[in-house]
Amino acid sequence: MPPRTALTVWPLEGIPEIEAGADLVDVIARAADDELAHGDILVVTSKIVSKAEGRFVVADDREDAITSETVRVVASRSTPNGATTRIVQNRLGMVSAAAGVDASNTPAGTVLLLPVDPDASARAIAAGLRERLGVEVGVIVSDTLGRAWREGQTDHAIGAGGVHVFEDLRGGTDAEGRPLVVTMPCVGDELAAAADLVKGKASRRPVAVVRGRADLVGALDLPGARSIVRPLEKDMFRLGADEAYAEGFAAGLARGRDAEEEAFSSGP
Amino acid sequence: MPPRTALTVWPLEGIPEIEAGADLVDVIARAADDELAHGDILVVTSKIVSKAEGRFVVADDREDAITSETVRVVASRSTPNGATTRIVQNRLGMVSAAAGVDASNTPAGTVLLLPVDPDASARAIAAGLRERLGVEVGVIVSDTLGRAWREGQTDHAIGAGGVHVFEDLRGGTDAEGRPLVVTMPCVGDELAAAADLVKGKASRRPVAVVRGRADLVGALDLPGARSIVRPLEKDMFRLGADEAYAEGFAAGLARGRDAEEEAFSSGP
Repeated sequence: MPPRTALTVWPLEGIPEIEAGADLVDVIARAADDELAHGDILVVTSKIVSKAEGRFVVADDREDAITSETVRVVASRSTPNGATTRIVQNRLGMVSAAAGVDASNTPAGTVLLLPVDPDASARAIAAGLRERLGVEVGVIVSDTLGRAWREGQTDHAIGAGGVHVFEDLRGGTDAEGRPLVVTMPCVGDELAAAADLVKGKASRRPVAVVRGRADLVGALDLPGARSIVRPLEKDMFRLGADEAYAEGFAAGLARGRDAEEEAFSSGP
Repeated sequence: MPPRTALTVWPLEGIPEIEAGADLVDVIARAADDELAHGDILVVTSKIVSKAEGRFVVADDREDAITSETVRVVASRSTPNGATTRIVQNRLGMVSAAAGVDASNTPAGTVLLLPVDPDASARAIAAGLRERLGVEVGVIVSDTLGRAWREGQTDHAIGAGGVHVFEDLRGGTDAEGRPLVVTMPCVGDELAAAADLVKGKASRRPVAVVRGRADLVGALDLPGARSIVRPLEKDMFRLGADEAYAEGFAAGLARGRDAEEEAFSSGP
């Protein structure tokens, strides 16, 4: 049987459909009843945070909504059905398809933007639950993201409140005593992934509880999920290969023409 | 308290240091004792599979080892300490730093290559445990990977035996009845991530059990983790931005010179 070191992950049942203006602390506290304990981490699907914030946009404006959420286009490609997939960096710094604009599980005729500030939302929910229930819990706001080189999607942390998103082992040593120089597990993303295994995409179970990593729960002013976003200057994939090639080609073409002109104009 | 739908994840204790030639079915069966049940999924760190396969290389050859495991360089960049980070596609198709060549938790003076065929290893372990213990279990072989746009690392599935790596919802509908067209959760990677939360990098707990998703366990000939690798023709990030720009620039420069030469040679 599972020993004491086990991690347990379960969905909160009975979360109602979330409307704009809903008080998520109240909704989660009621669904959790007396289930929550010190050190529990709640993983809240960003969709219900967006809904509570009223981030609905009429569906005809989906492409406009993506554009307005986009800070920078990373890559785009036509799909077989004639649509265009846009991989973009959004105003939160995240790189994802369609800027996180979501068209599933939303009222007919609408799409949903990401929360305004998922870290602030996570902190507010954590603070509210701590005060109301008297237990120190952490909160992750999760979103489903694709990956550069891997098929399918996994859930990731896009907001965090009162929970460490990295387990920083860089000062530690391995079992042989050698320094673990580059290892920095992104436990925020791993918590989101674990929670997705019990949520189910098609059902209404948007909140899961992860119990067993109370060591990751801490002060409300811990760095948020924004700290997971790799800064542009460290990003080796800040542009798609086709897009970077095209930029390079245009620059090379201009240089080549200039060089030849110079060579001819400086000739006899 | 956690309801019946909970996922439970725990590490197997008492796994000894693995030597070349070790029988992992025997090692895991002994450590698991009578803990395993029908539908359990074992997540086995690739490091012990590599060790059992004797994939050690003397440490002086680390750079050579990376090169020999590399099929294609995706991107490279100098680090502040003068070393070079190479993001490469390895012979398994995976894109990762240093081709998965591992220098932590290995005997002094050695580095470790990835298993020869992690899907085959996962299937063999699953088959062996099923036969020996009489319970239908699945096996994921996991590795720690960085991500394109996100800091830190998370564990991913690089081998799978007897377990679905994707939860295919593409034929399903959301709670509003609309088709879930593009959603294909990579549960293989999510299982690996969940398991990492109980393993700990610095300790010797290389195997975790995930209980509660027996629906993902199936035939030993299910597609392996190789199916997670995005084919090159669908990969928008098959080259780093700098590398693609440089290729484009060189091609553009050549074209520009040719065009100018043609323009001048066809002149009066």
